[in-house]
Amino acid sequence: MMWRMLHAVIPAGGSGTRLWPLSRATNPKFLHLLTGTQETLLQATVARLAAVSPLADTLVVTGAVHAEAVALQLPGLPPGNILIEPSPRDSCAAIGLAAALIARKEPRAVMGSFAADHLIPDVDRLTAVLEQAQAAAEQGLLITVGITPTGPETGYGYLRCGEALDGPVRRVVEFEEKPSSEVAQRYVDEGYLWNAGMFVWRVDVFLAELARQQPELHAGLLAIAAAWDTGRDAAMAEIWPTLKKISVDFAVMEGAARAGLVATVPGDFGWTDIGDFHALGQVLEADEHGNVQLGDGKGDVLLDEVAHSVIVPRSGRLVAVLGLEDVVIVDTPDAVLVCRRDRAQDVKRLVDELKGRGDERV
Amino acid sequence: MMWRMLHAVIPAGGSGTRLWPLSRATNPKFLHLLTGTQETLLQATVARLAAVSPLADTLVVTGAVHAEAVALQLPGLPPGNILIEPSPRDSCAAIGLAAALIARKEPRAVMGSFAADHLIPDVDRLTAVLEQAQAAAEQGLLITVGITPTGPETGYGYLRCGEALDGPVRRVVEFEEKPSSEVAQRYVDEGYLWNAGMFVWRVDVFLAELARQQPELHAGLLAIAAAWDTGRDAAMAEIWPTLKKISVDFAVMEGAARAGLVATVPGDFGWTDIGDFHALGQVLEADEHGNVQLGDGKGDVLLDEVAHSVIVPRSGRLVAVLGLEDVVIVDTPDAVLVCRRDRAQDVKRLVDELKGRGDERV
Repeated sequence: MMWRMLHAVIPAGGSGTRLWPLSRATNPKFLHLLTGTQETLLQATVARLAAVSPLADTLVVTGAVHAEAVALQLPGLPPGNILIEPSPRDSCAAIGLAAALIARKEPRAVMGSFAADHLIPDVDRLTAVLEQAQAAAEQGLLITVGITPTGPETGYGYLRCGEALDGPVRRVVEFEEKPSSEVAQRYVDEGYLWNAGMFVWRVDVFLAELARQQPELHAGLLAIAAAWDTGRDAAMAEIWPTLKKISVDFAVMEGAARAGLVATVPGDFGWTDIGDFHALGQVLEADEHGNVQLGDGKGDVLLDEVAHSVIVPRSGRLVAVLGLEDVVIVDTPDAVLVCRRDRAQDVKRLVDELKGRGDERV
Repeated sequence: MMWRMLHAVIPAGGSGTRLWPLSRATNPKFLHLLTGTQETLLQATVARLAAVSPLADTLVVTGAVHAEAVALQLPGLPPGNILIEPSPRDSCAAIGLAAALIARKEPRAVMGSFAADHLIPDVDRLTAVLEQAQAAAEQGLLITVGITPTGPETGYGYLRCGEALDGPVRRVVEFEEKPSSEVAQRYVDEGYLWNAGMFVWRVDVFLAELARQQPELHAGLLAIAAAWDTGRDAAMAEIWPTLKKISVDFAVMEGAARAGLVATVPGDFGWTDIGDFHALGQVLEADEHGNVQLGDGKGDVLLDEVAHSVIVPRSGRLVAVLGLEDVVIVDTPDAVLVCRRDRAQDVKRLVDELKGRGDERV
């Protein structure tokens, strides 16, 4: 098969609230070493896409405050490929801007959108799935890569699939919100897939759906793209703050699914959304007691009768733990978190509380 | 009753290993604010003895490394009343040196020995008990104040009592080691008392028993006392390192009990040996969730669904805890301890491990 490369778009936003105190608004999780390797999540994301998208065609969309860190972490990325958001306007604006910029030069190009903070061990399998997704996208479908569930997770949205199309491709009938435990089990039993927020489409198809469902957002993004080479700063300053703050799922994909335009390719490449420290502990290699350490080589850890725990020593201090199971301990220079592991999702609640207090350590 | 004052002797040694990382060899627990008040344990000890021992007659025996801190914490104490041990030789040498020095000036003086790191809320009751103890000591008995048990604690030694003597005074038949849980329950049921290591005796009676049971130790201490005003440093340098390293319980009290010389006055003044963070949590006032915080006013604490825990923020950092019960968290500038509360005694094991590693943070 003759196969063109993708244009990879990597929205690198969000602060990774549930990974506080490691991840902060000023130092979000995609900039961190969380993979157990010497790569940050962002670097790992770009590296695993190298087979499907050359760096010259890879775009990173990020906030002004992170642009310098992104450039430092990705020295091979052309400087013009970092698209800077003056303020966060959620994923539809970020992804839509990239689509509009790609379409200026290559109107029927296929782009893929990939979160900067996911972990995918099996790159060969990912590459194969993306080739299938691209082939389907070429036909005019909006593809969301579906993840074969490994269990009834309640932290992800699900895809209800319909008829089989070419090869492994299946129609997506509906996007389902994060379910309760019972509903999640039913979804798994009935063959639903996880919605990983990993999209592949022709930019013209996406922009047409955006124009149909979100005409103002579409017009704003096209105006910015038109001014990109000559009056970018003024256009961004004027238009960007007026753009609707909405996710691409809500803005485009759900309506497109109802219109029969969405399909999925099931992926079984070990995808993980490292959403919290529990998830992080699951993907990293544990010692014989089930403990995972994710240090920076500076702090010491002393564990005595500790099991199934996640220890993140990042302050250079000694972290000593005695007689505990299933806990998360994250030690940073200005804050330490101690949390029951099955409550790791609720770290977001702590951060909200701190924000409410005006605490700057978030 | 005509009543003389005591000579209070306060051995201030030991590093409080089970209160690591707050308590260190270089900064032991008696120097710390652990009482929930603005007094350190040492200051509280001296203050509660003010009614029975004037500062002029109060002696603190401590290591050379702590002498300056002791002097700073007790500005009213005459400088000569701090007796400096060149090296730790256990409690018999420390207490015996104090007895020998008191005896030089007042051979039949009554002295009391009081640990620097105990907590006793009811000072009036303590004072009354010490008056009874002193009256019995005047008659030539070696008195160990017995604590009425509040439960079958396994962390304390016990006193088996015999015949009743004057008033509340009872003969002590035997000193019992720290018991198992079952044995502790039997001791409580049969009316044994806790041995608090709080002694009252005439110095001549004590020194005579020391001479009988530990003649070399006695001779060494008397030689140091004799040289105290003229050749103290030389005598200490020469003799102190040769003194037997033994506790006063083993060296004198057990043998004296067998000789019928020991008696006890039961005390019910709420005594606590703040041996570990669990015990510390029991004596301090808890919030409505049963949590105790012992901060220094600099660090913040954020607790979310946390109960029955002991939080000691001492690094100025934020300590955030989520969804845990019965834990101990101690945050210091170079080490953080996270421990199940019922394992607080085993913190000593962590410290031993760190010592073995040559870690300087102990």
